[in-house]
Amino acid sequence: MSAKTTATLLITCRDQKGLVAAVSDFLYRNEGNITHADQHTDKERAIFLQRVEWELDGFRVPREGIADAFRPLAERFDMTWTLHFSDEVPRIAILVSKLPHCLYDLLARWRLGELDAEIPMIISNHDDARPIAESFGVEYQVLPVSAESKARQEAQIDELIARERIDLIVLARYMQVLSAEFCERHANRIINIHHSFLPAFAGARPYHQAHERGVKVIGATAHYATPELDQGPIIVQDVARVSHRDSVEDLVRMGKDLEKVVLARAVDLHLRHRVIVYGNKTAIFD
Amino acid sequence: MSAKTTATLLITCRDQKGLVAAVSDFLYRNEGNITHADQHTDKERAIFLQRVEWELDGFRVPREGIADAFRPLAERFDMTWTLHFSDEVPRIAILVSKLPHCLYDLLARWRLGELDAEIPMIISNHDDARPIAESFGVEYQVLPVSAESKARQEAQIDELIARERIDLIVLARYMQVLSAEFCERHANRIINIHHSFLPAFAGARPYHQAHERGVKVIGATAHYATPELDQGPIIVQDVARVSHRDSVEDLVRMGKDLEKVVLARAVDLHLRHRVIVYGNKTAIFD
Amino acid sequence: MSAKTTATLLITCRDQKGLVAAVSDFLYRNEGNITHADQHTDKERAIFLQRVEWELDGFRVPREGIADAFRPLAERFDMTWTLHFSDEVPRIAILVSKLPHCLYDLLARWRLGELDAEIPMIISNHDDARPIAESFGVEYQVLPVSAESKARQEAQIDELIARERIDLIVLARYMQVLSAEFCERHANRIINIHHSFLPAFAGARPYHQAHERGVKVIGATAHYATPELDQGPIIVQDVARVSHRDSVEDLVRMGKDLEKVVLARAVDLHLRHRVIVYGNKTAIFD
Amino acid sequence: MSAKTTATLLITCRDQKGLVAAVSDFLYRNEGNITHADQHTDKERAIFLQRVEWELDGFRVPREGIADAFRPLAERFDMTWTLHFSDEVPRIAILVSKLPHCLYDLLARWRLGELDAEIPMIISNHDDARPIAESFGVEYQVLPVSAESKARQEAQIDELIARERIDLIVLARYMQVLSAEFCERHANRIINIHHSFLPAFAGARPYHQAHERGVKVIGATAHYATPELDQGPIIVQDVARVSHRDSVEDLVRMGKDLEKVVLARAVDLHLRHRVIVYGNKTAIFD
Repeated sequence: MSAKTTATLLITCRDQKGLVAAVSDFLYRNEGNITHADQHTDKERAIFLQRVEWELDGFRVPREGIADAFRPLAERFDMTWTLHFSDEVPRIAILVSKLPHCLYDLLARWRLGELDAEIPMIISNHDDARPIAESFGVEYQVLPVSAESKARQEAQIDELIARERIDLIVLARYMQVLSAEFCERHANRIINIHHSFLPAFAGARPYHQAHERGVKVIGATAHYATPELDQGPIIVQDVARVSHRDSVEDLVRMGKDLEKVVLARAVDLHLRHRVIVYGNKTAIFD
Repeated sequence: MSAKTTATLLITCRDQKGLVAAVSDFLYRNEGNITHADQHTDKERAIFLQRVEWELDGFRVPREGIADAFRPLAERFDMTWTLHFSDEVPRIAILVSKLPHCLYDLLARWRLGELDAEIPMIISNHDDARPIAESFGVEYQVLPVSAESKARQEAQIDELIARERIDLIVLARYMQVLSAEFCERHANRIINIHHSFLPAFAGARPYHQAHERGVKVIGATAHYATPELDQGPIIVQDVARVSHRDSVEDLVRMGKDLEKVVLARAVDLHLRHRVIVYGNKTAIFD
Repeated sequence: MSAKTTATLLITCRDQKGLVAAVSDFLYRNEGNITHADQHTDKERAIFLQRVEWELDGFRVPREGIADAFRPLAERFDMTWTLHFSDEVPRIAILVSKLPHCLYDLLARWRLGELDAEIPMIISNHDDARPIAESFGVEYQVLPVSAESKARQEAQIDELIARERIDLIVLARYMQVLSAEFCERHANRIINIHHSFLPAFAGARPYHQAHERGVKVIGATAHYATPELDQGPIIVQDVARVSHRDSVEDLVRMGKDLEKVVLARAVDLHLRHRVIVYGNKTAIFD
Repeated sequence: MSAKTTATLLITCRDQKGLVAAVSDFLYRNEGNITHADQHTDKERAIFLQRVEWELDGFRVPREGIADAFRPLAERFDMTWTLHFSDEVPRIAILVSKLPHCLYDLLARWRLGELDAEIPMIISNHDDARPIAESFGVEYQVLPVSAESKARQEAQIDELIARERIDLIVLARYMQVLSAEFCERHANRIINIHHSFLPAFAGARPYHQAHERGVKVIGATAHYATPELDQGPIIVQDVARVSHRDSVEDLVRMGKDLEKVVLARAVDLHLRHRVIVYGNKTAIFD
C-alpha cells in the first residue's frame, strides 16, 4: 500500500535478555523509521521471535549493506534471521487438480492488485483448469502423475520452479500427496489448503467425514506442507456453522468460501512476511 | 416464557408421503393452535423428523387423551414418538469433578430462572464443590470412584437418580469415563461437555493438545454420552479464535467461557424438547 | 444440484388455523414428493410464511395447471403467493461503479457453475470494469450519471432490463443512490451490498466511520434496496474481528472478503427462492 | 497466574524515533526480565503506545524506586505513563439495576478466582439484587435515584467509592444515565456493558430495535463510560447470529450470554492492565 520501500527482519533465537534493546538500538542508531515491530517469547521453549519493519528512506545504512551491518548483532545472539525488501516481488506457482475455485480466487485477487506477487506458472495433474489459466494469461503446465511416476513428476515440478525462480508454491486444492523429499526441499515455502479444521478430518473427503459425524461447525485450514500429511504448521483457520439441514453438497458449497478466504489470507500473510515458523507452529505478526 | 401450556410431539419415522398432511390434519381437526412446527427429511437415510408444539387451551382432545388419540396415526406411519407438556418440569442431576465453572454457571442460570428445570441433586467423586452446592441449597453427594469401584459407584448413582426421578444427567466437567452399560441405560439422557471441537482432541487434556498442535481456533462440544468416549451425537459446538500469544493457561481461561455457554445451550435445547437424536446425529429444531 | 425439476411455492398470509394442513393436503392428494418444507409464524404481526418445494415428477397436476389448481386454496386463505420452477433460470443484471471485487466474484461463481442464473448484462456509470466484463464475455453498458441526468439514466437502465428480461438487479458496489421510483418499480428485485453491519454506519465511507469509532468488529450487509437508503430488508450479514492495529486500508481489505461472501450468499438465496420479504424483514428458509 | 510479581508500564506519547530503544535499554541496563512487551503506532495521529511488563525479581532498581528511575526517560519523550505492580489487587464496585445476570456472572468469576480483584461493594438503585449480594457476602447499598435526586445520589456513590478506595466501577446493566461530571471524575475507570454492537442501537431497548430492524446479527459492547451516552472508547465487542425465527425474548436470552462474556472480558483486560485509551479508542495489548 505504502509507496515507501521498507526492509523487514524476521528473527528467531533462544530467549535472552537485551534482544529487543539490541535490535531497536541498531535501528535507532542508524535512524531507521520503524513502521511495524512485534515480538513474541515462547516461554515454554525459551524461543524469541521478532518481526521489525522500517523505511529504507533516511536509513543510514545503504540497502545492500544492511545484512552485513546486522550480522555481528545476529551472531552475538545466535539468531536465525531473514531480511526482505518490500519492492522485491515474490513469485508464486499454483498447483491445482480439478476443483478450480481457489485457483480462480487467487488469480482474481492477483489481477485486482490485492496480492503483492507475480504468478507466472500454474501446474496441474489435469488439463481441466487450462481455460482459466489462459483467461488470465498465465502459463499452464500439465504434469500427470501416478504412483510410479511421482518422483519423475516432482523432478519436473522442481525444474519449472527453478526456471521461474519461484518463491512460494501454493497448493490450491492440489489432490496429490507430495513426497517427503519434495516437502523438505521446499520447507516453509509450500502452503496447502485443507478443507477441514485440522486436526479434525485430516485425509480424504473431510466434508463427508464431517457430515457423517454430525458436527455443527465446519472449517478450513491453511498450513505449510511438511512430510507428514496435514500435520504442518497452521497459518490460518476459519469456521462456519452448519446444521442437520445441510447436506454434504451444502457443506462443500459453504466450505468453498471458507477455503478461498483462508488460503488467500495465508498467502497474503506469507507474502507480506508476517509469518515466522518455529517448531511445528507459526507466529503471525499482523 | 409463555403462560399458556403447550403439548409437544417429537416424531421420527421412515420418510413417506403424507406425513406432514396427516399430523397437521390431526391438529387442525382438533382445533390445535400450533405455536411451533418444524420438520426435516434426511434424504440419504430416508428418515423423517418432526417437532410440533400447540396450545392445550382450546384443543378438543383433553390432555390425558392426546397420546391415545394420536396413537393410531403413529401406528399407521410406524412412528417413534414422544409427547411432552410444557408444565412438566424436568429434573436434572449434575455430575462434576473438581472444576466447578460449568456447575456454577448452570446453578446461576437455574437460580435466575433461565433453565426450565429442577436441580435437586449434584453428584461428585470429590468433595471440592460442596460449598457451591450448599450456597445454592442443592443436595451434594460424594461418590468416590476407582477402577475397581466403578460398577458399584455407578449403581449408587443409579439409585440416587431413581430416588430423585431424574430426567436428565448433565456431566459438567465430570472427569470419569462412564461405563458403556451406564451410558446405554440412560441413552439420550446424559449430556456431556467436551472441551474441544470434536472430533479434534478427543480424550484427555484437549487444551494442551490444541496448544501443542498450534491451532488458531479452539472449541467446545456438548453431546449425548454414548458407550464410545466423545463419540456421541453432537448437540452444540462453538469456537473461539486464538493466536500464538495464547499459552495453555489462556486457552483454558478462554475455553471456560465456551464450555459454559455451549453446555448451557445444549441443556436448554434438551429441556425445551428441541433436540431429536437419529443415527449418531441430532436435529435441532430451534 | 438435483437433476429433478421441482416446483416451489412461497406463501404469505394472515395467520389462521389449518394453513399447513391445507397446503400439505393439497400436495399429498396430488402425490407430491416434498423435498423441502418450512414455515414461520410471526406471532406479533400474525403473519404466516411458508416455503414448500416438491418434485414435478409424479405430481398429478401437470406443470402448467399447478397455479390454477392451487388458486382456490390460496383464495380461501387470502394468500399472497408465487410459484417457481427449478428449471427456469433467472436472469441477472449487475450494476457496478469502480470497485470490481464483488463483480469479479459473482462472475467467477457464475462461470464455475455456482450460481443458478444467467448474467447477460453489466451496467456501470464508469468504463473501468469493461475489461472484466469482456473477459467473461458479458455485455457491458456504460451509463454515466449526474444529479440532472439521473431520471434519464434510470430510464435507460429500465430499457436494458426490459430488453434482457432481467429478474434480479444486483448492486455490486454501485455507488449511486437509486431513485425511490426505481426502487419501487423493482421492489424485492434489487439486492445491494452495504459495507457495514447495518444499521451501523449507513451512508458513505463506512470503513472510515468504523475506524474513527474504534469498533472491534466490522461487517457487511446484503439487503433489498428500498426508497430509504440502506434501510431495506436485510438478507444476510456477516462480521469480522478487527483491532487497533488495523488501519482503514486493512478494514477495506478485510471488508472486501466479507462483502463478496455476503453478497454472493444473498444472491444465491434469492435465486433458489429461499427468501420471503414481509414488512421490512426477510424470512430465510435455508 | 504467575507466582512472580511483575511491574507493568503503560506508555502513551507522540511518535518519535528511539522510543522502543530507550525503554528496552532502560530495562536491559537494569537486568529486567521482560515477560510481555507490545507497542503500537497510530500513524495517522502520530501517537505511540506501549505496554511492557517485567519481573521485579532480579531487577536492579527496587520497586519503590522504579517510578523515579523511569521519570527522566519519560520526560525526555514527554510520555503519559502509569506504573502497576501485579500484587496490587484492584478494587471494584459493581453498579446494577434490576437485571442481575452480569452481576451474578462477575461475582461467580470472582469467587472462582478468575478475576484478579476485590469486590467490596455493590450499589443499586433497586433492592432486587440484595439476596445475590448477600449470598456472596458483598455489601449491598441501595441508592434510589430520580431526575431530581441524581446529583445527590451520585455524590453518595462518590462517597462510597472513596471510602472503599475503589479503582474500577463496573456498570453491570445499570440502567441509569450517569452525569457528565461523574463520568469525567472517573474517566477511564467506568466500564459499561451495552447490549448491542455499537454504534448500532445506542440508547434504550436495543433488542427491540434489533428485532424491529430485522438484523441477522446481534451484539454486545463493553466500553468506558464518557459524558456522551454509549459513545465511549470500545474495549470488547462480540456478536451472535440470529434469524427471523428469533423473537425479542430469544434475542434477550441469547444476548445475556454475549453481555456476560463481553463485560467479563473487558473487566479482565482492564484489571490486567492490557488496555490503553487514546483519543476515543482503545489499544488492547493481549
